[in-house]
Amino acid sequence: MTGQRSDARRNYAHILAVAEAEVAAHGAQASLEQIARNAGVGSATVRRHFPTRKALLDAVFKQRVHVLCDRAHTLRGEDDSRSALVEWLRELLVYSLAARGLADVLSYEPLQDEATQDSCAADIGAAGALLLRKAIDDRVVREDITIDDLLTLIVGIALATENYTDPATPADRAFRLAVAGFDPTGT
Amino acid sequence: MTGQRSDARRNYAHILAVAEAEVAAHGAQASLEQIARNAGVGSATVRRHFPTRKALLDAVFKQRVHVLCDRAHTLRGEDDSRSALVEWLRELLVYSLAARGLADVLSYEPLQDEATQDSCAADIGAAGALLLRKAIDDRVVREDITIDDLLTLIVGIALATENYTDPATPADRAFRLAVAGFDPTGT
Repeated sequence: MTGQRSDARRNYAHILAVAEAEVAAHGAQASLEQIARNAGVGSATVRRHFPTRKALLDAVFKQRVHVLCDRAHTLRGEDDSRSALVEWLRELLVYSLAARGLADVLSYEPLQDEATQDSCAADIGAAGALLLRKAIDDRVVREDITIDDLLTLIVGIALATENYTDPATPADRAFRLAVAGFDPTGT
Repeated sequence: MTGQRSDARRNYAHILAVAEAEVAAHGAQASLEQIARNAGVGSATVRRHFPTRKALLDAVFKQRVHVLCDRAHTLRGEDDSRSALVEWLRELLVYSLAARGLADVLSYEPLQDEATQDSCAADIGAAGALLLRKAIDDRVVREDITIDDLLTLIVGIALATENYTDPATPADRAFRLAVAGFDPTGT
């Protein structure tokens, strides 16, 4: 029984990892059949874990939030707290761009449990706030910056570029600009 | 005849100014009847100039773009070219936030003349590029910043905050952050 349960858990984690890759490549329209093929399982197995496309997208979304929170905790151990913060924000931006279709689906089709979405945003905010706090304490980032300011910038850059053919480059440029500010180098 | 024509033009300009204020206050749902009342003319007169709500919103939109372009040319005369650029970007941000409902309408209901929208964006870009060029030439702004980078930031901040109850404050905070960058003051 325990063996079966841990098999099922491994199966679930494996299908979720494959689903994440498919969603990253094809957005919210990722095919459940293709996910089954890539995972080497039958469609029925995929549907047992994820009865609807929405259940699958919710799981991918939560998984990514989880990964970003984990990354924040890992990066908190780095010596250069400013680089750690910037690196985490960059990963959040890349994630936000990859989640394009996903964000669309989740926004026009609210999660059954609305608290889930709020708690994801709260988790991301809390994780980023830890990195920001450390960078401010280390006096390597301005002390009047809040995590909300940073999230507004990241979400905004993702929204402003998501319809571009290649959003990564303009998004990264705008992000670098926000980090560096307007001042010429060396002044 | 000439007198009548210039009367009609004054009438149009007056109704447009009143319409702008209504749209700023109530977004795309601004009432044509209220605009007529505020302008002190009959509904028929408003409808003669703006047969549809869309015609009215298009006119308000173009008028605002026109004002922003004019502002860029005025600000170009200022000595402090960095302040001039920052001031113009701030006005663009305020406009973008005020145009909330407007942008929605214009995006899901494409302009009859699609070139209009593109040419508005091009006008804004060209006007801002003049201010940026001057600031870079004066060595008061980093030379690798492009007007596209700046527009991505402004549009992004507007999009990220437009659903807030009071978008002005978080939008202004994010904008100031992007201008100042992450560095602590005095380093």
